[in-house]
Amino acid sequence: MLNNFDMKSKYDKDTCKEIIEEYDRKLSSLSREIEKHKIPVMIIFEGWGAAGKGELINELIMPIDPRSFIVYSSFNQYSEEEKYKPRLWKFWKNTPERGKIAIFDKSWYKNIITEYTNKKINEKEYKSMIRDSISFEQTLINDNYVIIKIFLHISKEEQKRRFEKIEKQTGRAWMLKKEDYDQNNRYDVYLDSLSRVIEDSNTKISPWNIISSDNKKIAQMQIKEKVILEIEKALERNKEMEDDKEDIYLEKSENILAKYDLSLDIEKEKYKQELKDLQEELKELSFQCYAKRIPVIIAYEGWDAAGKGGNIRRLTEKMDPRGYQVVPISSPTQIELNHNHLWRFWTKVPKAGHFTIFDRTWYGRVLVERIEGYCSVADWKRAYGEINDMERGFSEFGIEIFKFWIHIDKEEQFKRFKARKENPEKQWKITPDDWRNRDKWDQYEEAVNDMLSRTSTKYAPWDVIESNSKKYARIKVLKIVVERLKKRLKEA
Amino acid sequence: MLNNFDMKSKYDKDTCKEIIEEYDRKLSSLSREIEKHKIPVMIIFEGWGAAGKGELINELIMPIDPRSFIVYSSFNQYSEEEKYKPRLWKFWKNTPERGKIAIFDKSWYKNIITEYTNKKINEKEYKSMIRDSISFEQTLINDNYVIIKIFLHISKEEQKRRFEKIEKQTGRAWMLKKEDYDQNNRYDVYLDSLSRVIEDSNTKISPWNIISSDNKKIAQMQIKEKVILEIEKALERNKEMEDDKEDIYLEKSENILAKYDLSLDIEKEKYKQELKDLQEELKELSFQCYAKRIPVIIAYEGWDAAGKGGNIRRLTEKMDPRGYQVVPISSPTQIELNHNHLWRFWTKVPKAGHFTIFDRTWYGRVLVERIEGYCSVADWKRAYGEINDMERGFSEFGIEIFKFWIHIDKEEQFKRFKARKENPEKQWKITPDDWRNRDKWDQYEEAVNDMLSRTSTKYAPWDVIESNSKKYARIKVLKIVVERLKKRLKEA
Repeated sequence: MLNNFDMKSKYDKDTCKEIIEEYDRKLSSLSREIEKHKIPVMIIFEGWGAAGKGELINELIMPIDPRSFIVYSSFNQYSEEEKYKPRLWKFWKNTPERGKIAIFDKSWYKNIITEYTNKKINEKEYKSMIRDSISFEQTLINDNYVIIKIFLHISKEEQKRRFEKIEKQTGRAWMLKKEDYDQNNRYDVYLDSLSRVIEDSNTKISPWNIISSDNKKIAQMQIKEKVILEIEKALERNKEMEDDKEDIYLEKSENILAKYDLSLDIEKEKYKQELKDLQEELKELSFQCYAKRIPVIIAYEGWDAAGKGGNIRRLTEKMDPRGYQVVPISSPTQIELNHNHLWRFWTKVPKAGHFTIFDRTWYGRVLVERIEGYCSVADWKRAYGEINDMERGFSEFGIEIFKFWIHIDKEEQFKRFKARKENPEKQWKITPDDWRNRDKWDQYEEAVNDMLSRTSTKYAPWDVIESNSKKYARIKVLKIVVERLKKRLKEA
Repeated sequence: MLNNFDMKSKYDKDTCKEIIEEYDRKLSSLSREIEKHKIPVMIIFEGWGAAGKGELINELIMPIDPRSFIVYSSFNQYSEEEKYKPRLWKFWKNTPERGKIAIFDKSWYKNIITEYTNKKINEKEYKSMIRDSISFEQTLINDNYVIIKIFLHISKEEQKRRFEKIEKQTGRAWMLKKEDYDQNNRYDVYLDSLSRVIEDSNTKISPWNIISSDNKKIAQMQIKEKVILEIEKALERNKEMEDDKEDIYLEKSENILAKYDLSLDIEKEKYKQELKDLQEELKELSFQCYAKRIPVIIAYEGWDAAGKGGNIRRLTEKMDPRGYQVVPISSPTQIELNHNHLWRFWTKVPKAGHFTIFDRTWYGRVLVERIEGYCSVADWKRAYGEINDMERGFSEFGIEIFKFWIHIDKEEQFKRFKARKENPEKQWKITPDDWRNRDKWDQYEEAVNDMLSRTSTKYAPWDVIESNSKKYARIKVLKIVVERLKKRLKEA
């Protein structure tokens, strides 16, 4: 695409100016429209060094109300913290709220381009990064996000001319980095890899816009035109009905839960001894994970009163609090609702070397949200794939993922609800919600079986934990965590 | 305090165990109480290396619901981003919401201790850091925050013994850092400086708790006891009436606004030329600020329809968007209300080398919140001092602070409101709120005069900008910014 791009423009400078004024009025009113209709917009800028990103971004934002947008810059550098998180973390974190515009000066493609050009990654890693980027965009676009990808193109000669101009200005030499010169010296090498990255990520739902920046006035006009067009299209789409969305066909799942024997138990003395030993072992392993910078996610889901809290407490009892965090998930806040459903989990991804334990998880989408109708049918059906994509990305970054379904049967739950009701110290733990959920036991059972069969992957398998005996459940979880971490550490 | 601390404990190990179980039940129920009464709690842990902070923090949190607390650790290291922000930024950012507990493993005292002991700071810097820390605590405590400061004390011999124990464990040597050994080798030197830091920051409203950690069971008990005591006191205080608070006496201010001549104007051609020149100059200066890592805050306040938006747009028109950010401030969100009123501004402090332009500011406390009764009289009266403290801290970190009051008179405002009402493209800019505020013009005038006279400091002066002529106002703001930055850069 880049190789045979026509750098000459059809427009002349004078007609541009008038058009730009018209566009500015439009952008100003469109930014209020997207606020009103709660449409989130992401605009990313990639391009050659000295292509004029700064100026062009500033001209794009001038007519827009500062309440509507935010510019993220220097996104080519990864901070210490960012290096310890999956590559897309900092972009996920900064996805805009519905109704806002986020502009990225350098995007999730920047480090693919740099590392691919300089042969820092192999073909497999390259493909995995491209796939990650595409599924990131896909997830957001399916959620009504508008993503506009702009590449600013200049010729080798023009780039050289601009470098020389910058060099001549006093006190500006620091603006040119080694990479910039390298780009110009090896323009053709960069051109080849840029072409490949752009072609490989030029999807139908999220295409690239290549804009010649040799003439900045014309570039400005073309960028504004593109942004207006895409926002107008989104506003149009927004009017269509939600249920127009294509239905996804999913196969019926088998009853996986039925296979588990809930009478499994452990005797008290054996429990005490094993608990102590396993906790000591886990403490030791967690230090080793820290030393080897292995991040760990432990995700808990389960029936109400199944004993998640106590199970987590036994898991962490001997661990160093500086190495783990328990993240309880309840219903989303307004700000969380204003983002994609996965956003609030992405922001909580553990730093390499740390454990994050989720007490309830992103699977809420296919459990409570599905059953209570908090999202559309298309939304939760799509979620299985989105979640698998996310977990695959985590796993490829090196995160060890455990997912536990803490399982009890309906009779056991009733006993526990009754006991809570009768104990003044535990009454706060039981709410009318719990009884309501209980009435929908069969629906939940179906949803759990669907979840287990559709999202149990090689890189992030589910383990069902028989928990009619809480003691048995605690030991089983500890054993699974200890065994798998030992294996992982041996390979590390 | 540390020098003559009695390391022997009055308690024996066996009685401890029973007491701890009782304390755990209490902590569990108290954490629900503080949630209910919306009390924010901060617990900070300082102490010698190998004093057992990790274990003791874990034991403290075990009985508490994970929804109620968060542990912040490794707060002795400053990331790249944190180094470019004022020292207290990362603590302000992580002050807990009302009803939550934040536990800090290492606090805002850690780098004072390290840098003072190793003579990296002089006496003046030391005193400024202590003063900063105390006023940080003061601001929060006045806002019903509970701050519990714990220092874990062990003897030189005990520390050495623990180091040796760690060394003997396979694969644990990395846990001991150079600084740890240095502490043990120069125990007495550290002891002296620790003693000074603790004494200097041992205020009546926020005292230190020195706890011997030679016996960890007893230490655990004492920590839990202290935490319970302080939370119970806070719950007690919370029952007292708000208006029991001591009234602050403030002198009446003179009418500063009356001194400004609102007929000042500039002719069109001169405006065009000066605007262009000053924008070019500011662009150049902003690059220099970036190169020299000077952060800049430009705070805008002013009457409704005074022209803040347009003024800001002219200021930033030629700047690089990667170097500045416009932050519009509207009414606080629920999460913002759950924090101290200064929190949402602290989180937006510019990185060294960047500009942050606030469209409305932290002065809302002494303007709209005062007049509309959104906070108590004691709250806004206290705010002048809190704001001066905050700005002094910013200034000492090196931030250049501009504060502009964009001034028009009542007649001019009426003309502009009318014009907006009649222009379909601008109608959205005018709301019933604007007319309501206008009715309170005299009250606002008094509040503005109070603000100008009480918070115009040497390090953060106010400039009143005559804005009946918007053009005049834009040039005046640009001139002030350009002049002061030039002076600052010459000194840098």
